[in-house]
Parts: sequence; C-alpha cells; structure tokens
Amino acid sequence: MDDEACMRRALELARRGQRTCTPNPMVGCVIAKDGEVVAEGWHAKAGGPHAEAVALEQAGAAAAGATVYVTLEPCAHQGRTPPCTAALAAARPARLVAAARDPNPQVDGQGLAALQEAGIACEEGLLADDARALNRGFFQRMEKGRPWVTLKTAMTLDGRSALADGASKWLTGPAARRRVHEMRAASCAVLTGCGTALADDPLLTARDVDAPRQPRRFLLDAELRSAGKGLRLLEDELVIATAKPRPADLPAHVELLDVELADGKADLAALLRAMAARWEINELLLECGARLAGAFVKADLVDEIKLFVAPKYLGAGLASCDFAGVAKIADAPGYRFAGVELIEDDALLSMERAA
Amino acid sequence: MDDEACMRRALELARRGQRTCTPNPMVGCVIAKDGEVVAEGWHAKAGGPHAEAVALEQAGAAAAGATVYVTLEPCAHQGRTPPCTAALAAARPARLVAAARDPNPQVDGQGLAALQEAGIACEEGLLADDARALNRGFFQRMEKGRPWVTLKTAMTLDGRSALADGASKWLTGPAARRRVHEMRAASCAVLTGCGTALADDPLLTARDVDAPRQPRRFLLDAELRSAGKGLRLLEDELVIATAKPRPADLPAHVELLDVELADGKADLAALLRAMAARWEINELLLECGARLAGAFVKADLVDEIKLFVAPKYLGAGLASCDFAGVAKIADAPGYRFAGVELIEDDALLSMERAA
Repeated sequence: MDDEACMRRALELARRGQRTCTPNPMVGCVIAKDGEVVAEGWHAKAGGPHAEAVALEQAGAAAAGATVYVTLEPCAHQGRTPPCTAALAAARPARLVAAARDPNPQVDGQGLAALQEAGIACEEGLLADDARALNRGFFQRMEKGRPWVTLKTAMTLDGRSALADGASKWLTGPAARRRVHEMRAASCAVLTGCGTALADDPLLTARDVDAPRQPRRFLLDAELRSAGKGLRLLEDELVIATAKPRPADLPAHVELLDVELADGKADLAALLRAMAARWEINELLLECGARLAGAFVKADLVDEIKLFVAPKYLGAGLASCDFAGVAKIADAPGYRFAGVELIEDDALLSMERAA
Repeated sequence: MDDEACMRRALELARRGQRTCTPNPMVGCVIAKDGEVVAEGWHAKAGGPHAEAVALEQAGAAAAGATVYVTLEPCAHQGRTPPCTAALAAARPARLVAAARDPNPQVDGQGLAALQEAGIACEEGLLADDARALNRGFFQRMEKGRPWVTLKTAMTLDGRSALADGASKWLTGPAARRRVHEMRAASCAVLTGCGTALADDPLLTARDVDAPRQPRRFLLDAELRSAGKGLRLLEDELVIATAKPRPADLPAHVELLDVELADGKADLAALLRAMAARWEINELLLECGARLAGAFVKADLVDEIKLFVAPKYLGAGLASCDFAGVAKIADAPGYRFAGVELIEDDALLSMERAA
C-alpha cells in the first residue's frame, strides 16, 4: 500500500467514531512498514485513547522505523489524555504523514513541530480536503467559533411544507423519515423553534437507527411560549434558548441559555457561538419552521441544506422558508448542489454554501 | 444478433424520427437473416416512406426468407402512403416480430392478421413497453383522444417560481434553459396561458437546438386579454383558445379555437381533445403560470412533470402551482419520481403520473 492508500484507510477508520467521539474530531491512524499495515487505530470516545495511541499500542516494537499515517495532526498538549507527540517520540517511527493540521489553537502546528524536533520526518497535506470535510463541524467550531449548520427541510412539488393549517404528517415517506433519524444520530445537536414545537410536539431524538449518543436538543423560544404546554421535548434533557427568566416549575433536566435579542428577534449568530463555546457542538441539525429557517438563511448561517421533495401537490399551504423577500433574483442567497438522490418515493436534494 | 438485440436496434432507429415524424409515431425496422442485419429503416416524416418500406427497399431480394423486426405493427390501410402489409407480403420474409400493436383503430391487429394470412409467421410483444414508451404521445392520443401532457415548471429551494412582482428571469441557468428548448423541439405543441404571455411575452419557440420543426404554439386566453397588447407570440403562427369571437384585426396566421367554459373556466379536457382531434398533437409541453398549472394538475391531466430547482432562496414570492388546496395530505395529487439529475447549477426532477 502506498501513502495515499494508507491515508484513505486511516480516513475510513476515523469515520467509525462519527457517532461517538463528540466533541472531539474523528481521527484515524495507520502504521505501515515496507508497504504493509502493521497497526490501525481510531478515536472512539472523548476521554478514551486517541487514534495514534491505539495504533501504537497495537504496533508495539514494530512502530520503530515505520511510517505513521494520521488524518489529523497529533496533539502536543495534555487534554483529557496525555499528548500523542510524547507517545510517538517514544515509539520512534521514521516518518509521520498527517492529512490536515489540527485547527485547535492548542495544537495548530505545534504537534508536527514537536515530532520534527524528536527526529521524526513529518509531512502534512495528503488528502487534506477529505480530512477537513470529514470533520467539517470540528473545523468550523475551531475556526469560526460556531457549529456546521445543516438545515433539514421538506416540501412538495409546489413548494409547500404543510397544509394551511400546519398539518405536515406525513409529507414524506418512511425511508425519508428514517434518513432524518440518521442525520440526527450523526449530529451533535438538533435545534427547533417554538412554532414547530407547539405545532408538532416533536421528540427530536434519533430513533430506530444506530445512535450510541443522542443529539443534544435545543429549543429556541425567546418568549417561553412553550412553557406549561406539556411538550414531550421537556420530558428529557433539553436546552431552551430564551430571553425570559427561568420559570420556577421548569424540570431540573432542562437548562436555559440566554438569547440576545436584536429588534425583538434572537441573535442567531450569538446563539450558535454559545452552542459551540458552552457545549462544544460541532454539527447542528436545524429542524424548524419556515420563519426560523428563513432567519438562518437570511443571516447566512446555513452551511448545508438537506431538502426532501415529496412528489405531490398540495395546491395551497405553507412555504418551507420565509423571510422578507429579495428585491432582485440576483440578490437571492445561493447554494451549490452537492448531490441529488431518490429515497424510495421521495427525492433528497443536498446543497452546500456556494463558495 | 438475437431477436432482442435486433429489436433494440430498431427502437434506436425509430428515435431518429423524433423531431420530424409528427403526427405519425416513430417507427424503426431491422431486417435480419441468420443473425446478420441486412437492412435498416426508420420513419422520418409524415407522407414519406414508412420504416418497413425503407428497410425493404434497402434489403431487395435479401428480404425473402428473412426476419423483419418492427417497433410498431405494420399498417394495413392506405394512408398518406400505401399499406406496408402489401409490400411485406410481396417481399416474402419468413417471419415478422412487432414490438407493439398499433393502437390506431385503422390498424389495431389488422396488420398482423393480414401478414399471417400472407404466410408470414408473426409475433408481437417483444420490448412492447419500450415501444409504447417511445411513442407515449401517439398511444395516448389514439387510446385516450388527448396528447401526453408534460408540465414544465421551475422553483427555488423555498418553492418560489418568481418574485412577488412576477419577475422570474433568470431563475435557472443557461443549461436548464437550453434543456427547455430541447423539450420544445421534441414536443408537437407548447401551451401557455395569458397570464404568462402578458407577464413574460415569451416566443415559446425551440431556439439554439436541433429543431427541424417548431412546436405548434397554443395560447389559452378565454377572455382574449392578450388582444392588442403587441405580444411577440402573435407575430407568427399561433392558435388562441378562447371563448370570444375573432377580433377583426387579428393577423391571418393566428387561428382561433373555441374553448368551452365551465364556471367561467376553460374546460381543459375538451381543449386537449380538440388539440388531438384537429392538429393531431401527440406531445404537449405545458409552460404556464401557477394557476393554469394548478388547474391541469387538479383535473388530473398532467402525465409528466419536469421540475427545475434553482439552488437559491427568494424568501417570498409566487408559488409554481396553485389550486384550491387539498384538505388532507393523503388527498394530494401524487406522482412517482422517474429520475433526478443535475444540470449545471440546477437540478431537474422528473415525475410521472403514479400508476
């Protein structure tokens, strides 16, 4: 196996931690000697061993003189576990290839520098785009101080998301709904607004899919309109982002987050910063109504859109996204298609922020 | 080449007549002997020789004892050209395989019966579904007395087809617009309503694509609101479907078609029947605004939908399809996805009537 094949394997290993390693990045590691893989590792859980430590343990004496492939620069600081640079220096590989530099300000080149000093030949940048894409949430949090935001929405062929009375069950079919549960399982957090909470009384949990950790659930409810409504969301751990003081009867498992208001509207950028700073949220799934979706789009805070299209016509009803319309089509917030696929009876359009 | 390979080749040949043979069906013919193709033909133009005649002419004496593969049952009647059954009987092939039976009441089994009587072993049904799909417009006109109706529409990620003021240029990109011109070139007719005619002043011609014949253009304008507005549509051949009498100053190249009104609305089923009966329209492309599109959908007269999705948000604006909404989502007119594809910056969703 050549360098690229080893790094692809390391990326594949990294992905195994996707639903468990939050808030840490997914990392994979391959140790190879003379083109043969001698050890593999990945990071499974924050607080547990890093990918490099797992692979070094497996390699034992074979690590000496070998090449270590790692999808993210090894850490040089004492975090929840000891620095990987120390373990690597002790194992004496001849060479280390890192895909992406760790954007964490506590690392950011210091890991590679320490290894070079310890006499290990270091290279970086092999499949760096893939490595960054794998951890786009972690990179965004480190670089911009906010999570990667995915807006999930659904509509019909005539662009309606619900009947005029708000009814939207079931617009899309079981396979599309299952895909939404997969999205929740792969997200650190899910956010909805009080309109959706009151209309649909959702749980926002990942159900009937592999979900070793549930996404943290956030409810944006500046005026606390949801209080005392017996919503199912409040029966378990939840963060309510609000501008109101904590009601006396709120269950202890419900946390409050102060939202800043601007013109009576929640400051969404500040909300995202708080989610990143306080809960280390890397990936946020936005499952909300047209007005909150529109506010996120208008504020240019949406990184990715997952739009389910149900092949039917409602004739009238609610839109999936509302904001004060643009004056010219050229002014419309634009994205680029990343893919289209059929999911049983529905279509799923994937878009990302235009470059 | 076996039977199926020969018939696939015949279907491929048939398709060559797609933009020229209207109102006739596309037909292809292959003559083979001992697994070798000895002649090929297809029907290029109404009034010109049929596919069988072209292939028989090319085969000459080699047709005797051979197998003739034809995508549609040979005609047994004198139409614009002599009956193919006579030419086939004279050429004395041993066997004839037809994909689909000709639904034209003047043929409908009589062609095969005549050939059997002439001593040719006849089979039918090989790749019949492909043959019917190829000529879905012709089959629909023969079997239901109306054209195959394709609704072409476009919308944004928030389901808007235009700004609130009606502006929709250019919602989609140049590749999507080019695809629309290809659709027009492959259609017998294009229909729009007076709202779109007045708002956009379209030409509805197939431009910058291979278009040996232009689609016949229809304007539905029950109240003749378009009269005297200097619309570009009226500068060339056009049929206006209206409930009003012919104005004295209407150019001679503009024909009128009486529409029947029901509750002040045009009877769309009657309109389609008239298009089929008077102009032999096989495929109709519907390019219209939300209300006319909604009326066609509500009346269950849309066979296929081509929905372009532009990856942008307008925030507010017009829907792409409007009708008195359904009361329950289960009542929504439903289709099935036939395909999704990316066309440069836009997506194209293709749907057909649910079975």
